Parts: sequence; C-alpha cells; structure tokens
Amino acid sequence: MQTLNVELGERSYPIYIGSGLLDQPELLSRHIHGRSAAVVSNEVVAPLYLDRLEPALAELRHHAVVLPDGEQYKSLETLNLIYTELLEHRYDRNTTLIALGGGVVGDITGFAAASYQRGVSFIQVPTTLLAQVDSSVGGKTGVNHPLGKNMIGAFYQPQCVIIDTDTLKTLDERQLSAGIAEIIKYGLIGDRPFFEWLEANMERLRARDGEALTYAIRRSCENKAAVVSADEREGGKRALLNLGHTFGHAIETGMGYGAWLHGEAVGCGMVMAARMSARLGWIDDADVERIARLVERGGLPVAPPAEMNAERFLELMAVDKKVIDGTLRLVLLTAIGEAVVTADFDPEALRATVAARDAA
Amino acid sequence: MQTLNVELGERSYPIYIGSGLLDQPELLSRHIHGRSAAVVSNEVVAPLYLDRLEPALAELRHHAVVLPDGEQYKSLETLNLIYTELLEHRYDRNTTLIALGGGVVGDITGFAAASYQRGVSFIQVPTTLLAQVDSSVGGKTGVNHPLGKNMIGAFYQPQCVIIDTDTLKTLDERQLSAGIAEIIKYGLIGDRPFFEWLEANMERLRARDGEALTYAIRRSCENKAAVVSADEREGGKRALLNLGHTFGHAIETGMGYGAWLHGEAVGCGMVMAARMSARLGWIDDADVERIARLVERGGLPVAPPAEMNAERFLELMAVDKKVIDGTLRLVLLTAIGEAVVTADFDPEALRATVAARDAA
Repeated sequence: MQTLNVELGERSYPIYIGSGLLDQPELLSRHIHGRSAAVVSNEVVAPLYLDRLEPALAELRHHAVVLPDGEQYKSLETLNLIYTELLEHRYDRNTTLIALGGGVVGDITGFAAASYQRGVSFIQVPTTLLAQVDSSVGGKTGVNHPLGKNMIGAFYQPQCVIIDTDTLKTLDERQLSAGIAEIIKYGLIGDRPFFEWLEANMERLRARDGEALTYAIRRSCENKAAVVSADEREGGKRALLNLGHTFGHAIETGMGYGAWLHGEAVGCGMVMAARMSARLGWIDDADVERIARLVERGGLPVAPPAEMNAERFLELMAVDKKVIDGTLRLVLLTAIGEAVVTADFDPEALRATVAARDAA
Repeated sequence: MQTLNVELGERSYPIYIGSGLLDQPELLSRHIHGRSAAVVSNEVVAPLYLDRLEPALAELRHHAVVLPDGEQYKSLETLNLIYTELLEHRYDRNTTLIALGGGVVGDITGFAAASYQRGVSFIQVPTTLLAQVDSSVGGKTGVNHPLGKNMIGAFYQPQCVIIDTDTLKTLDERQLSAGIAEIIKYGLIGDRPFFEWLEANMERLRARDGEALTYAIRRSCENKAAVVSADEREGGKRALLNLGHTFGHAIETGMGYGAWLHGEAVGCGMVMAARMSARLGWIDDADVERIARLVERGGLPVAPPAEMNAERFLELMAVDKKVIDGTLRLVLLTAIGEAVVTADFDPEALRATVAARDAA
C-alpha cells in the first residue's frame, strides 16, 4: 500500500492506494469519528463491493443509500433523495458519508456531505480509474443543473480517500481507457519522466497489473495535488488540468452526450492540442507522434470524429462566453511535460487543427 | 454610520450599521468585484427597497430574482429557481449575489451563493431586525427539508453586511418585537451592561429611534461575533446563543408553525429559562422579574401558552434525540449577563417550570 498526503493545511488528508485495501477495515474505521455512517453507492457498484465495507461499519449505526447509475442522476433531485434517507434514518451532524463508486457517486456524495446539516465528514472509495485519478484530489463536489454541468456544488475535502486497485478488475475496457486518458494528461502537462514511464508500461496498465496501477494512480494524484495545492480554488495554474478538454467538450457536445466517453474525448482532445502546438512550432512532429501513439496504446481515439467538420468545432468551442470577448484560452504544449494556458496563438492554427482529419 | 469588523481570518468582513445607508451606493459597490450582480429579494421587500440599490448596480450587468414571501419557500425548490434564473441570465462565478430581505431571503441566498458554481460572492442587506442582529454574524446559510428545518446548508461568510435602520420603519410591530427578543438575549447571555442599557432604552427601540437601533444592533452583532469567532462551527460556546430556544421550539411546534413568531417563542422561552434557573437557586426572583419585565416591555409574551400543558412541553422537548441518551442540555442563567450550557440540573425543576403558568 502507498500513502499520499494531500497538503491543504487543516484540510489535509491521506490517499491510500493499493491492492486489497477493501479488506483492511481499519483504513476506513480510523477516519470515522462519530457513531454512524451512511454509504452512498449505485445499483451497479453496490452489489459488487458494498459487503466489503461491512466489517468496518459493523460497530456503527449504518445504512446504504443506493442510487440509480448514470450521469443523468447527478441532479438536485437525487441529492434530495440522499438528504431524505439521511433524515429518515436520523443521521446527525456527527455522521460520516462514504462514497462508494465512480465520479458521479463521488461528486454527489461529496456535495451531500458539504451541505447536510451544514457539513458532515466524507470519505471517498472511488471504484473507477477516472475517479481515482481525477476526483481523489481537488475537492470539487456537486451536481448538474438542466442548464449546465456541475453548476451546483462546493469545494469540500474528504477525511481520506481509499483506492483499492482490485476494484478496477470489474471495470469495462472503455472505462479503463477513459481513466488512462487523464493519467497521460498528468505526464503531458508537467511530468515528462512519468510520460516516459507510461510509454514503457502501458500494456501493464491495460492488463490491470496492481503494481503498475498503484504507481500510475499515485503519480497522477501527486501531480494533481501539486497543481491544486498551489491553486485550490482555480485561479491560474489549475487550468492546466484542462489540457484536451476544450477540444474534448466540443466532441462530447457535437456527438451527443454519451456517444463518446469524457475520457475518450479528452484523449483525442490532447492529440488535437498537440497537433495545434506543432502547427504553432512549439513542439515538433516527432513529439506529436509520440503523444498520439501513447494515447492510441491507451485504447483511446486519436482522430476527431468524421461527423464533425471544422465549422462545427469552431461553433461549439465559441459557445464559451470567453470567446465572445476574443479571448479563448487553450491549454497547449511547449514540450512533452510542459504546458501553458494561453490566448496568444494564431487563430489559423486552431482552424487548421480542427479541419485536419489525420489519424495517428 | 458605525462599522463593525467580524474577525474570521481571511473570511473577515465589515458590518455597516446606520440610518440612510441604502442611499450610499459606494458601500455596496466597493464590495462587488466582478461585472455582474444579482439581487435576491421577495415580493414584499422588493417593491419597497429594490430601487434603492439601483445606483450601485447601474454600471453592472444585473437582475433581480424575486421570491414569494414566507418560511415555506425556504426550500430546495426555491433554491433551484434561483439557480435557474442565474443560469438563464448566464451569471458566471465572478458574480455577486445580494440578499435583500429578512432571514429567509438571507439564508437561502447565502446558500445559493455558497453552491452556485461552487461558490460566488455574497452581500447581505437585511431588512428585518431579527435578520440584522441574528443572520448578520455567523455564516449560517441554508434551506429547510420537509423532515427538518435548516437541514441543508453551509457555513458561508458574506463580503459585507449593510444594515440600514430606516428599513425597520416599514416593519410591523410583531416582527420588530421578534428582533428585540434576540437583542435581549445577547444582554442575558454575556453582557449585563447592555441588558441595563436596554432597560433604559426599550421605548426608544420600539419607537424605532435610529440612534438607539444602531447602538442595539451593533452591540448585538459584537456579542454574537465574540461568541462565533471563538467557535465558528458550533462546538461549545456557540450553544449559548440558544438561550430560550429549546423552550421556544417546543412552543413553536406545539402551537403549530406560524402561530407564534420565532422571536416571540424565544422571548417567552428566555423567561422560562430564567424561572427554571431561579428554581435551581442559580439566580433570585428579583432577577427573574427584571428579565420578564424587559421581555414584556419588548412587546413579547412572558407566559407559556395556556393550550400547552407540562406533558406536551416535555414530550416536545424530548423529541430531541439527546434526551433519549439522558442528556438534554439547556442554556440556563447563573446571573443576568452569565449563562451556561448544562445537562446537570434537577429534572424536577424543568417539570415545575413547564407546569407553571405564572405571567409576569
């Protein structure tokens, strides 16, 4: 097992990463200080792993809130279901909420914890690779509103995060690759040695080798923690974490939500950001090919969808109000392992990038 | 104008108190840092005071969200209406929400600010005496759930609080007295000189004398700030602020919500706490009579409702789960200006207090 401490002053917390951690009840119980705990999970994850938490909870008044599965349930209505169950079972403000599941469960449970009785304790047990490398660090919690994703929420830190890499054994191939996209991102934006380690170990990750996964998750969380510690509430540096996301969001929206997974769109978006950086002369073509090759080996798409032409891309990227002021900011690369957030680029490079249909 | 700084480290903020402050637009505008602001008010207050904020907002993109009036609208549904209006008008996370109204508007707007796009700036312009002396300090925001009051919310501090005592000129008599109950409370729990000042100046307060109101509001906020600074998230000392509230909640529930105003129930509850303290021998009968006399001069009830017998009181006070463990904690007086939170009292004194029907 590896332990990473996320340093945020009085809100610091540990992330435990390793194989078999769900069978170590003391990891969970040492972070529960009241006499009650409620697990929030969903109908897919609960049957697989809920029982495994039982030994840690046996001495406590406890209960599981099982939500339907899917992004469409990341809503105020579902949040209210959680509040109602907590109140019906008379959980007080000394209780602890435990999020067992992927990003949706983690985000909604975190916000429930931030807002139930003005804040109760919260522990994350993420069971998807994406949640393990993305939601474990940063404290972003919340729900969607019909008019926008993640529009309602809070910055709220957990007591601890428990990442059992064995839970990835039940994850489907596309979801695993979606997590790998975010892992590659950490190498690209600030950690060239990690990028090179990924080049050497991608097959081990895709084979769900526990040791390789533990290392990749830890290194990803460390990279994210370094960015977030410097910028907890998203001023400047935290924007680097959006590498590939502006292109990716255009793909997600253009293809209809759910057609491409978020991680798939980010994978392709990172390759597009790399191609654009090369057009600007900031990195060379060999770098682009290395990046595209690694993304592809991660099981991710590297070329934008044939259905979307350049006009559609530009239109969707321009939805962002920032563009109206003439200042679309993109995360671009100046090297493998070095990224910048900038509005200072030739718009022709952007146009050419979204017009091109080169596969890797 | 008087200015009181609430010291909470990086979350410190000023409270401006005085007559005519709504006609000083720079007070508001100096605390708005983005280019947009949304005022949240209700259908009673908006027609009276919304126009007065216009000069401060004229240069900004701005808009008013006008809610229905009443505690029953302090709900997740109303909160969602605010989110929807903010999103429809494309307010970003650099916007500022301004709460113009009483406690309900302040609480719901504060929680909207705490949770919209994970937190935007927030300014309070309380227009009832209760909101001015209670919600101005402490950072409690939130909404009710059908299963419990204030069960959903956050601790969230405003950028500033602007208290224009002229807004009290339109407040009805009962609402004014409800605020006076909380003002008397601050004297009782920790500020005997203030209690004595209130004895000398109660008629000026009820006549809505601007100078007397400014002083009483300032002194109340100072007292609350001293308690809250020592105990921001409600461990021990903050519980003193609940003097009269356990008896008062029983009255509110027993008589049906809305029959007695919260402040009226607290006024009577404080007298009951004083009578119980005298039964325990902690204060003398002369103290009780001074307290009851001041509460009565505040325009508040001093005897429990005839409709509620002792059994009903004990039943309602025992709803609190803490009683089941045998540890009902009450705030009681050891002197005028000195209160304690304690579970260490003879239960017979409680029984005799809720059985007695002595008026002042």
